[in-house]
Amino acid sequence: MRQSLLFTKTRKESPKDEVSKNADLLIRAGFIHKEMAGVYDYLPLGLRVLKKIEQVIREEMNEIGGQEIEMASLQDPEIWKKADKWDDEKVDVWFKTKLKNDTELGLAFSHEEVIAEMLKGHIVSYKDLPRAIYQFQTKFRNELRAKSGIMRGREFIMKDMYSFSRSKEELYKFYEKAKLAYAKVFDRVGLGEHTYVTAASGGVFGEKSHEFQTLSEAGEDTIYLDEQTGEAINQEIYTDEKIEEAGLQKDKLVEKKSIEVGNIFPIEDLVAKKIDFMFTNENGKQSPVYMGSYGIGLGRVMGTIAEVLSDDKGLVWPTEIAPFHVHLVRLGEEEQVISVADEYYELLKTHGIEVLYDDRDVRPGEKFNDSDLIGIPMRLVVSAKAVSAGEYELIDRQSGKTMGVTESALTDEIRSSLTKKRLI
Amino acid sequence: MRQSLLFTKTRKESPKDEVSKNADLLIRAGFIHKEMAGVYDYLPLGLRVLKKIEQVIREEMNEIGGQEIEMASLQDPEIWKKADKWDDEKVDVWFKTKLKNDTELGLAFSHEEVIAEMLKGHIVSYKDLPRAIYQFQTKFRNELRAKSGIMRGREFIMKDMYSFSRSKEELYKFYEKAKLAYAKVFDRVGLGEHTYVTAASGGVFGEKSHEFQTLSEAGEDTIYLDEQTGEAINQEIYTDEKIEEAGLQKDKLVEKKSIEVGNIFPIEDLVAKKIDFMFTNENGKQSPVYMGSYGIGLGRVMGTIAEVLSDDKGLVWPTEIAPFHVHLVRLGEEEQVISVADEYYELLKTHGIEVLYDDRDVRPGEKFNDSDLIGIPMRLVVSAKAVSAGEYELIDRQSGKTMGVTESALTDEIRSSLTKKRLI
Repeated sequence: MRQSLLFTKTRKESPKDEVSKNADLLIRAGFIHKEMAGVYDYLPLGLRVLKKIEQVIREEMNEIGGQEIEMASLQDPEIWKKADKWDDEKVDVWFKTKLKNDTELGLAFSHEEVIAEMLKGHIVSYKDLPRAIYQFQTKFRNELRAKSGIMRGREFIMKDMYSFSRSKEELYKFYEKAKLAYAKVFDRVGLGEHTYVTAASGGVFGEKSHEFQTLSEAGEDTIYLDEQTGEAINQEIYTDEKIEEAGLQKDKLVEKKSIEVGNIFPIEDLVAKKIDFMFTNENGKQSPVYMGSYGIGLGRVMGTIAEVLSDDKGLVWPTEIAPFHVHLVRLGEEEQVISVADEYYELLKTHGIEVLYDDRDVRPGEKFNDSDLIGIPMRLVVSAKAVSAGEYELIDRQSGKTMGVTESALTDEIRSSLTKKRLI
Repeated sequence: MRQSLLFTKTRKESPKDEVSKNADLLIRAGFIHKEMAGVYDYLPLGLRVLKKIEQVIREEMNEIGGQEIEMASLQDPEIWKKADKWDDEKVDVWFKTKLKNDTELGLAFSHEEVIAEMLKGHIVSYKDLPRAIYQFQTKFRNELRAKSGIMRGREFIMKDMYSFSRSKEELYKFYEKAKLAYAKVFDRVGLGEHTYVTAASGGVFGEKSHEFQTLSEAGEDTIYLDEQTGEAINQEIYTDEKIEEAGLQKDKLVEKKSIEVGNIFPIEDLVAKKIDFMFTNENGKQSPVYMGSYGIGLGRVMGTIAEVLSDDKGLVWPTEIAPFHVHLVRLGEEEQVISVADEYYELLKTHGIEVLYDDRDVRPGEKFNDSDLIGIPMRLVVSAKAVSAGEYELIDRQSGKTMGVTESALTDEIRSSLTKKRLI
């Protein structure tokens, strides 16, 4: 897209009311807008990143047999009362509202019980199992504090998947598959080498769970990590007993700050028993459905990438989730420069390369600063000098390495970089 | 996808608490689930239709220069107080909630004032205009009655676009472009021949607006239509004066029931003046931004299609927004039949054709009834008889016409039907 038409502007000064690095960078680069603490809008560049993260997750969930749905945010208290989670003492993040007739409703903070209730009409026999169902859906959580930018939203899009199995064994078989799918997701979005599977408590869903923790000083969590095996345990269950249970050795563990980018819970038959979600098994008997719950907050992932992969110049997007592949920066308003830049813009697009084209009439320094701040992986510079030399600078945002490419090698060079990452 | 894995089941009996035809059909076919009056979940088949409608709209909005964003649902009352729309007496569909510290928040019923407030940080000069910005975003409306299925949701996804112009003239130029884009959308989703541009009142946004009204006895609106010109006027402004203003002749108008599937409002400078949304014009003076607002409810469109295009056997989806292109129905469990059906399933998929493959071991009558109810445009039947004859029935869901196709002509026949509609 032509940057002259993009409605967002970058800004030099940090927003006054923002203490998190991720939101500061994303606001300055024009990716998001803050409505209030913990509530953000996604602007064109930010939405492109969010949608790409969504697509990566969708592909990996489909790969393990997930079926996509989209449930409502407004929830009937009756379901939550059955599960003993309606009371604010039991769940302290409820946003509640009311119908005209004063009936109370909840705003979804999660869907475990609600999806189980819905499925009673569809899953009745062992032949209907196993199943995995997921959605990208807006969650509302009434957080007391929301100072971590888009990493802790009061409103945020979550991928929540739920698995439904005939037995504990079948559940854990899927649970391990989901764990691998999660690792793939974090690899693909660029967080793989900083992210560790971490044993954790199960919160409201029983004894245990696993979290995916990305090392970062900005994290709200503390984990103890075995740097050799890459296995970790959350501080909340850091006891001799739990360390042993998790198969870890205490003397090898180092304390780290980290961000929880994903979590998976084996619910087992806890929800099924509470709300009477049963199926007829092979022997004609009623048996509880074994469930698992698998969550990833999309804004949390995007915010973590901004925290962990950015540098002092600005954002640095991994190619697969970058808002565009190439930032085509035109320097100068000479007719020939405009004509070559316009031509390359069209050329790259016809090759399936996503281009942000800085066609604005502003000074080179401003263009480069904006380009660094926005953080598109490759920058191609078209200047009068380059046009007359027939060689163009292609700069890697992450490493800063510059390569001279001739016109004939231009699309090949960019395409080969994208092909290596299987993006085109 | 294989129907044996699809978690939803069809059902014969109508849901007891549902009076609308659209929700009745969509629930029975497994497209949606009702959480409560006006609140529905989209299940796999339903979500596929919804996402296709979304994509049609996205393409047409991009075509007229729209930039996609996604704003939050939680809204700060301060903005709405400035616009004098926070009071329940002024806007009677608010859902409201509260932060932990008792601060009241609103749940978005619309975004005109909120997007204008957000844009103050990005649009400051005449060089930043005109712009058109849109989103697919969940709206909450506390409707007193919600008896029209997914046509009147208390929670629903809306495409809302807002245009920002330097002058009244520039606004109306875009307004006419948007009107044409809307007509294209309704054509593509299959409602074109039943849908009419209708002069209407502007509601909270001034004097006038245009609605896109689809003729249907299930509609909550009444319009007066000139069947020759295709122009109409809403009953709410059916006065001699307004009829003349709209360029209509009273004696040619016939009364019709209809569903409002889209609406567009020229806000002009009404919002800008209320919340002080100004830009610096070519002469260096402050000038109000002229706005327009353009809405389509996605569920409303899907529900209308269910109301208007279905028949007594079930749903009938136009190809462009159908959950799948082809319903491959296998009759019989003989090894050879299974092997041929499996092979065609893979073959069609490799040709880019979307297939729901009924590989279930149930009786033919049940398969055909389900297939009619679900309403996929083309049905391909693979039976033992067909396999031995080497000729397969391809049935058009809408017309009921049956065509015999040989194996060699199979993909060509289906592809040509999709190519004609530019779907592959």
